[in-house]
Amino acid sequence: MNGKAVIILSGGIDSTTLLYDTASRGCEVSALTFIYGQKHEREIDSARAICGRMSVPHMVVDLSGLKPLLSGSALTDPGVDIPDAPETPGRYDTLKSTIVPNRNAIFLSIAVGYAVSSGAGAVLFGAHHSDRGVYPDCRAEFVKAFEAAERLATDMPELRIEAPYAAMDKSEIVGLGAGLGVPFGLAWSCYKGGDVHCGVCSSCRERKRAFVEAGIPDPTGYRA
Amino acid sequence: MNGKAVIILSGGIDSTTLLYDTASRGCEVSALTFIYGQKHEREIDSARAICGRMSVPHMVVDLSGLKPLLSGSALTDPGVDIPDAPETPGRYDTLKSTIVPNRNAIFLSIAVGYAVSSGAGAVLFGAHHSDRGVYPDCRAEFVKAFEAAERLATDMPELRIEAPYAAMDKSEIVGLGAGLGVPFGLAWSCYKGGDVHCGVCSSCRERKRAFVEAGIPDPTGYRA
Repeated sequence: MNGKAVIILSGGIDSTTLLYDTASRGCEVSALTFIYGQKHEREIDSARAICGRMSVPHMVVDLSGLKPLLSGSALTDPGVDIPDAPETPGRYDTLKSTIVPNRNAIFLSIAVGYAVSSGAGAVLFGAHHSDRGVYPDCRAEFVKAFEAAERLATDMPELRIEAPYAAMDKSEIVGLGAGLGVPFGLAWSCYKGGDVHCGVCSSCRERKRAFVEAGIPDPTGYRA
Repeated sequence: MNGKAVIILSGGIDSTTLLYDTASRGCEVSALTFIYGQKHEREIDSARAICGRMSVPHMVVDLSGLKPLLSGSALTDPGVDIPDAPETPGRYDTLKSTIVPNRNAIFLSIAVGYAVSSGAGAVLFGAHHSDRGVYPDCRAEFVKAFEAAERLATDMPELRIEAPYAAMDKSEIVGLGAGLGVPFGLAWSCYKGGDVHCGVCSSCRERKRAFVEAGIPDPTGYRA
């Protein structure tokens, strides 16, 4: 890949690795981070720090006006608790409370608009394989269909929308990122925000496990 | 059609007619209007007045945070003039300056998120046939492809995304709206805002012509 690419950067491990990965392939990258009513903005600070470290253009887009529309998710709704899901076979049902309706399509469509006005030919995001059981908008077949629709919407038949890690486990992403020198200590995963990763929410558990499985030292300080 | 439907309402003639049309078919409608950095908010006042008249739920979504991303359009960028396009064969090129990159995909993806959280099974918008020469995201093939992608994104195989007027001219929409008692005087078309329709911008010219061609009295006061 070459040319200009827009990366959707949450400030977590997957999208941070994707940013380093894409830049390492000679792409001119820029990053977009969204405020969409999530309960904490800790991950946005992480995204800013990561882009600062890499000296890449970064825009933080305030979509908090969407909060009243996208109710019911544990990530945005004060009335729904963040699940401390143990990693059991039934966890997918528990994790469904963390779905923000149509989030990836919303983020991707905005990123495509930005790609058009900034002359980029690709939009990339960091969905990975373990997301697919819970989040339908992280699946490769969605990404493919969305790319087809956006090529028509923009009259750009070469436009690419990709989730290069859609078939990879998080541990493989950690392994890849370690080889690229990704500063994992800057990346934020915890759903609960705060100063330190809680260590018990589903996102913290997944992060912990990824480092163990990859055999990479985990630089994260966890509360539990 | 029955059940609940979300209508994207700009406050213009097409989307207002669509709102009346869909409600007349027994649908429980709600409306979404977007602030996206357009140069005036006159059309948003119109959308509010129309929903008030119909007593339908209406949400105005502030996306003005997108303005720095979607630069270069005559509708949002202070550095680009609104074209006073005469209706000549070459007008499509002139009108391209009014494209806001990927606008319909952005609006539709947010409306789908709202449909999911409010239990609606359909999202409708008022693209019409004469839009298709200028705006690729008003074409039926885009709408179909976007519906396919969103069905995957939401795990809702029955979700419907439709532009029922995609094959109709604006004059046919005016004719349809007249039969439904649409209060055309409340609907706003002028790209320039203000108290009175300018009468010379491309949108005003198209509005004038639609009433003439439909043989319906035009209640609009035009400055020119």
